[in-house]
Amino acid sequence: MKMQAETPGIMASLGQAARNAAHQLSLASTEAKNLAILEAARNIRARTAEILEANARDMAAARQSGESGAFLDRLALDASRVEAMAKGLEAIAALPDPVGRRLAAYERPNGLSIERIATPLGVIGVIFESRPAVTADAGALCLKAGNAAILRAGSECAFSSRAIHDCLTAGLEAAGLPAAAIGLVPVKDRAAVGLMLAGLDGNLDVIVPRGGKSLVARVQAEAHVPVFAHLEGLVHVVIDRDADLEKAKKIVHNAKMRRTGICGAAETLLVDQACAPTHLAPLVKMLIDAGCEVRGDAETGAADPRVKEASEQDWRTEYLDSIISVRVVKNLDEAIAHIEKYGSHHTDCIVTENANAAERFLKEVDSAIVMHNASTQFADGGEFGFGAEIGIATGRMHARGPVGLEQLTTFKYRVHGDGQTRS
Amino acid sequence: MKMQAETPGIMASLGQAARNAAHQLSLASTEAKNLAILEAARNIRARTAEILEANARDMAAARQSGESGAFLDRLALDASRVEAMAKGLEAIAALPDPVGRRLAAYERPNGLSIERIATPLGVIGVIFESRPAVTADAGALCLKAGNAAILRAGSECAFSSRAIHDCLTAGLEAAGLPAAAIGLVPVKDRAAVGLMLAGLDGNLDVIVPRGGKSLVARVQAEAHVPVFAHLEGLVHVVIDRDADLEKAKKIVHNAKMRRTGICGAAETLLVDQACAPTHLAPLVKMLIDAGCEVRGDAETGAADPRVKEASEQDWRTEYLDSIISVRVVKNLDEAIAHIEKYGSHHTDCIVTENANAAERFLKEVDSAIVMHNASTQFADGGEFGFGAEIGIATGRMHARGPVGLEQLTTFKYRVHGDGQTRS
Repeated sequence: MKMQAETPGIMASLGQAARNAAHQLSLASTEAKNLAILEAARNIRARTAEILEANARDMAAARQSGESGAFLDRLALDASRVEAMAKGLEAIAALPDPVGRRLAAYERPNGLSIERIATPLGVIGVIFESRPAVTADAGALCLKAGNAAILRAGSECAFSSRAIHDCLTAGLEAAGLPAAAIGLVPVKDRAAVGLMLAGLDGNLDVIVPRGGKSLVARVQAEAHVPVFAHLEGLVHVVIDRDADLEKAKKIVHNAKMRRTGICGAAETLLVDQACAPTHLAPLVKMLIDAGCEVRGDAETGAADPRVKEASEQDWRTEYLDSIISVRVVKNLDEAIAHIEKYGSHHTDCIVTENANAAERFLKEVDSAIVMHNASTQFADGGEFGFGAEIGIATGRMHARGPVGLEQLTTFKYRVHGDGQTRS
Repeated sequence: MKMQAETPGIMASLGQAARNAAHQLSLASTEAKNLAILEAARNIRARTAEILEANARDMAAARQSGESGAFLDRLALDASRVEAMAKGLEAIAALPDPVGRRLAAYERPNGLSIERIATPLGVIGVIFESRPAVTADAGALCLKAGNAAILRAGSECAFSSRAIHDCLTAGLEAAGLPAAAIGLVPVKDRAAVGLMLAGLDGNLDVIVPRGGKSLVARVQAEAHVPVFAHLEGLVHVVIDRDADLEKAKKIVHNAKMRRTGICGAAETLLVDQACAPTHLAPLVKMLIDAGCEVRGDAETGAADPRVKEASEQDWRTEYLDSIISVRVVKNLDEAIAHIEKYGSHHTDCIVTENANAAERFLKEVDSAIVMHNASTQFADGGEFGFGAEIGIATGRMHARGPVGLEQLTTFKYRVHGDGQTRS
């Protein structure tokens, strides 16, 4: 590990090397990019033992620091997780190349032909914490979209990330692509993150934070380059007065309980008072029976004695756990107003058999993903058919919702003329 | 004019009012938005005398401050400029509504139907300097795309902007839309700009700086919200070895001399040494005869005694004047490398009859607009068929090139299901 005094120089070199590599990558063939990714996958399989050994060192250090079970689970690799990483890379190689897509093409009255063509974004910084597999999937997604990447792994997974990164480097070299196309910050020094947030002298075009709320909040607050951030998923399910109860139970159960720790998991249930007499108690019972703690308003409390009282803070909380807040609302207007006030513009859903109510909800709720009669756990790049994603953006610029390969590109205008001049 | 101590409160209210208005505007009908814009145009015509009177006050103050001719020309309004402003608004009303466009639609194997639909961006801050007409066109463009706008006019055009803004407000009221949909910063205090750059408590989604290089640079350096900035147009024209000389002369003349003060004007001419013996002297002669100062390298100097010697700084200079820098390059590689080193990724052009050379140039030059055999002065939203533009972005995120109505929108995903849950 290097001395802190060396950090600025190391980071500047990393940025410059990535910029140079990005230029070469933007012109690389689909075949070369796919070969690099497939060779990386092959290397990851071949070096499973090394990767697991490196991971064991990270795990030992984490245990020594007294890290918790959830932390250790994010950090841990085993043979099947390494195999899943290799398979993930193969899936990315199999996706269509997003670079060069013709997004628009038209001819002007003066005969100029104008095309809008997808091009890589440039250099993408990825700052993540304790999941070593991000090294492989973020690196490969950036590469497939013709971008250079600078990866900054949390110090807790430094050995694992380094071992995985070695496989990516070997893949790039086998394909004749510059090794600097996927850079890994080689210092533990936290000042490296600050230098990335400052943009590495113009050599970073966008930053993707992948980690907990405090990391994402710091990146959003301090970054001087654009950020694809997803701060949190404060996801609502609205049970409209015209909801089918059985459908509602099935959707709510899945939206809350399938996996409670993902950003598309439901956190708040809003029930229209017009259907509360028939729908509220069965929904609450189903949730509690499934092992979910329910924190509700007075009407919800009246529906089941096991309901705990919700505080104002509950409407603002992304539990990421087997807990849900439940509130009865006067009507659809009040449901939409609640979401506008407390939501995080990630994913929100209405359950209803009334097409007009659904249309109003989908139109008026200002979230990246608005759903009708489907589980919010579908908020996922894979489920959207993107093949893979680097995260789900809750910002409004450039990428919104799942950030897949297409969202990792920008575009240019190509204009062909035959000597036209402007009058 | 208010006291400085009141500025933070005033700006916070402006931001909150704009956010509320943005929510209403996002749901406004095309008819209502068009009515507001057409009524604004009608008011501008009807109140021409008032607007000119306000402008006379700004002009008097500017003359007293000893401002220069170019500054006064940007600031000045007359009856024909006011009429052009009204016509500009009518043109915006006539454009298709960019909100609600279906950008993609597909069905997943599980039966989920997914649509990607264009939605407004939210609240757009526009910071401009001495051109009062920006009040009308920026305000109307934001409105047509369903956004609220917060306009900050330079203090030098405060009276003119206020008079024009009154017409916009009257238009909004006539259409039953909230007056806060187009806010005008009511204080001269420069601290207002700082508050906008900080994002007005999350109530600004993007900032568009429209003005000189120092304004744009300040906004890009300090903004904590995304920026659609165009820093400068350091535009190149490359004369390839296979260029047709007559076509080259016509294009270069137009690209440099049609209007020298716009961002699409050519600033540097790069001539392939293989055609320099036949093409260089006629091109230089044509430019000098047209009144353009030529600053060249040694080979260009040898072609015409009137050529001045170019310094390193010339390759980095956006003259916005009747001056051009000219350099002979070994080949297309050297031309592309020159553009990569000195260019601003705005607009660059190749003149050639060789389709392979054109293709290489369009592919390898990383600029928002790359052109083949056409004048760079076509780099303009109107010429691209966008109808109107709020600027030309040289950044890579979200909008690149001309920023028209479509670029002032974002999108959301609308998902329809029939009770699907994720397995």
